[in-house]
Amino acid sequence: MQLLKDKITNQGKIFPGNILKVDSFLNHQIDVDFLCEIGKEFKNRFHNCGVNKILTIEASGIGIACITAQFFHCPVVFAKKTKTKNISSNVYTTQVASFTHGVTYDVMVSTEFLNENDTVLIIDDFLAKGQALIGLIDLVNQSKARLAGCGIVIEKGFQDGGKTIRDMNVNLQSLAIINAMDACKGTIEFG
Amino acid sequence: MQLLKDKITNQGKIFPGNILKVDSFLNHQIDVDFLCEIGKEFKNRFHNCGVNKILTIEASGIGIACITAQFFHCPVVFAKKTKTKNISSNVYTTQVASFTHGVTYDVMVSTEFLNENDTVLIIDDFLAKGQALIGLIDLVNQSKARLAGCGIVIEKGFQDGGKTIRDMNVNLQSLAIINAMDACKGTIEFG
Repeated sequence: MQLLKDKITNQGKIFPGNILKVDSFLNHQIDVDFLCEIGKEFKNRFHNCGVNKILTIEASGIGIACITAQFFHCPVVFAKKTKTKNISSNVYTTQVASFTHGVTYDVMVSTEFLNENDTVLIIDDFLAKGQALIGLIDLVNQSKARLAGCGIVIEKGFQDGGKTIRDMNVNLQSLAIINAMDACKGTIEFG
Repeated sequence: MQLLKDKITNQGKIFPGNILKVDSFLNHQIDVDFLCEIGKEFKNRFHNCGVNKILTIEASGIGIACITAQFFHCPVVFAKKTKTKNISSNVYTTQVASFTHGVTYDVMVSTEFLNENDTVLIIDDFLAKGQALIGLIDLVNQSKARLAGCGIVIEKGFQDGGKTIRDMNVNLQSLAIINAMDACKGTIEFG
């Protein structure tokens, strides 16, 4: 998606350790008009898949999922990272290791909101090692829902998450795939 | 907002300890078409305030803020609860005690995304004791931005957060105010 690649090139900031910050439009400040274009593109790519629910994980997936869901006219369910007093005890749970935060989370979705009648599109902002996506796919499988596919805004193609997910025969659509980044030169090479 | 009161009455679940769960449409599963009506109502209430940025706090505020921002054609900034490797060191910070989670968070916004040229609308799902809102107002004040007001979906009118915020001369608009709940009878009394 050229609009997204241009946005990453113009506004993304590269740091040593293959860290890409897109805080100005995707995961701290959110450019909502731009997210509409992202949502339309996901709709184009999954329009005939029978999607009736979008699943994401807190926190930065939620905005993308909500804007995208408007084009599918379906609800969003976001998986929660910690067990609060307010969540039902009837939950699907899985564990997700976070590279960014250096911790492993328990991630859960109430059994009320995913079941065998659902056809689920998973949406997230980044795909790197694939831990979050594998966790979300596990939750879908536990619920016996059908997985329509996974829509990712930015895939780090030089990490192995994309290969792992595609090897699971999942319809994975990444709107921008980064093959290489150079923090010194400030350059990004797209796939 | 009658549509919201009806939704709370029909889908909300009351638990002992004045806990109201609206997980089926607001903060676990998100009814995005319904959120559009919420967003329109916030636009009606703050339409002539010069809002150019919406501020919320992760996680459950993000979806509401993003859908609402479409009606203002402005970006969302969401305050983050933990310091990750990916956030700039130039941040406004404050502390927020969470009644739901029983902990105190450091909450932060990058100085890049709020400054004296901004007119900010704060959006959140719940107002009870007001800790999150007071923290977000503190961040706006630190940035020297102008505070247009606060838009809350559900205010627990029997707790003191609303009075505290209104006593600060903040334009606080809550779309539904709950005066009392009875977990045994399953009844909710609105203000």
